[in-house]
Amino acid sequence: MASSAPIGVFDSGIGGLTVAREIMRQIPGETIIYFGDTARVPYGSKSKKTIITYSRQIVRFLQTKNVKAIVIACNTASAFALETVASEVSIPVIGVVKPGARIAAKATRNGNIGIIGTEGTISSGIYNTYLSETNPTVNVYGKACPLFVPLVEEGWLTDPVTVEVAKRYIKELLSYDIDTLVLGCTHYPLIRHTIGDIVGNNVTLVNPAYETARELKKVLEKEGIESTATAGEHKFYVSDGAEKFQKFANTILPCEVVETKDINIESFADSLI
Amino acid sequence: MASSAPIGVFDSGIGGLTVAREIMRQIPGETIIYFGDTARVPYGSKSKKTIITYSRQIVRFLQTKNVKAIVIACNTASAFALETVASEVSIPVIGVVKPGARIAAKATRNGNIGIIGTEGTISSGIYNTYLSETNPTVNVYGKACPLFVPLVEEGWLTDPVTVEVAKRYIKELLSYDIDTLVLGCTHYPLIRHTIGDIVGNNVTLVNPAYETARELKKVLEKEGIESTATAGEHKFYVSDGAEKFQKFANTILPCEVVETKDINIESFADSLI
Repeated sequence: MASSAPIGVFDSGIGGLTVAREIMRQIPGETIIYFGDTARVPYGSKSKKTIITYSRQIVRFLQTKNVKAIVIACNTASAFALETVASEVSIPVIGVVKPGARIAAKATRNGNIGIIGTEGTISSGIYNTYLSETNPTVNVYGKACPLFVPLVEEGWLTDPVTVEVAKRYIKELLSYDIDTLVLGCTHYPLIRHTIGDIVGNNVTLVNPAYETARELKKVLEKEGIESTATAGEHKFYVSDGAEKFQKFANTILPCEVVETKDINIESFADSLI
Repeated sequence: MASSAPIGVFDSGIGGLTVAREIMRQIPGETIIYFGDTARVPYGSKSKKTIITYSRQIVRFLQTKNVKAIVIACNTASAFALETVASEVSIPVIGVVKPGARIAAKATRNGNIGIIGTEGTISSGIYNTYLSETNPTVNVYGKACPLFVPLVEEGWLTDPVTVEVAKRYIKELLSYDIDTLVLGCTHYPLIRHTIGDIVGNNVTLVNPAYETARELKKVLEKEGIESTATAGEHKFYVSDGAEKFQKFANTILPCEVVETKDINIESFADSLI
């Protein structure tokens, strides 16, 4: 695979842009092909079987763009589909959960770690698995926060309603004396200030995006496929609402998004599955 | 078409059950085949093109069950896809918007009507179109309420957060001196008490489900295909999460839902489209 090939990054919608942003910052020579599954967002309440089907379609689409590596920039899809899709392709596939768990295990001082995420991510117990592997002595407390994604999508990032909902969700975790809280959904960094105000200065917020970009860099170097040139034009694809997506992307990315294309992601279905 | 054939009813998820419930009450001799597109819920933020694609797939699925009529128990799909799918099949297809508009036009005394619904339903302006056709003198004020569906799905039906969100959304409409408010999304009847407390006794809440079931009854009679027997067993299908759906359905339907099947709705895609 040529080192000049792009990196595929995908998410259920806009959340994964927080990961794309981190990749652009840390390895600015890489070109990104981003896919947001805006027609079928949210992923957080869907079953493992459905998330695997959707992820396979997206991986097939990204492969038509000749990507050299894929980043699953969605916790739910990382939890449910990473293992399956990674075993089906010959390029590296990286999720956000393992890097997030690794950094949380390093960050905690008292061994009590909270995880907030979608219903799917929390019920999968995947953070617990990775955290236990890294450090068997930590205590992990998970809490599903299903209203955070719609509140972010509504743009109520610091609204009193969002503050009230966040207090409600996080209260229970604080009762366990956590000193570290993983933002286990790529939408959540967009409300990190609201969450930070509630948990206070003694709790470290962990954003897996940073560590994911670091891991990607290491993998590219290990495989000898890191870009040696300047990045080309990042390209953005969605399954619905290209205009709305592009407007949002331009508010959070360091580059200008000049074009976003709508594609029919269902047409990448494999009839054998 | 045999009068003993079932009625197809579909929605993006659980909301359409409020319409199915009304059909069961008003025409208890009819058998229902319900489909909830739980894998791709919500529809409210999606484009017209995507909603037409999804609705066509569902209509094709319902036709494999030999339905004699179809009720689109979703305002967004009624707004975007009714005309298209109705022109492509030879059985009657009924939406919820026209019946809702008709009853609102009858209910208003001062001519000021509010509509709450999803982003798609409100931006389509379809309630305005139908209301103007029925009564050109009415003033119609629409407000999109994107957080209502996730709040209902979270089960926070009378929660203080839902009350605060509802106040925020409805405040603007009340400033227009509305005396009638259409619950323009089939999820909203599930929070009608919260909404009713905010708007007060002087505002009539219109639930299109009641009028939709009445219209269905009339259409079946006109076509001479009304059931003359006792209803068979209603059948429920979803695109994801059958168990969760069934649990919810059993809390709101007058019949017991004994089985809900997961189907792969994408496999009903027409490759010609």
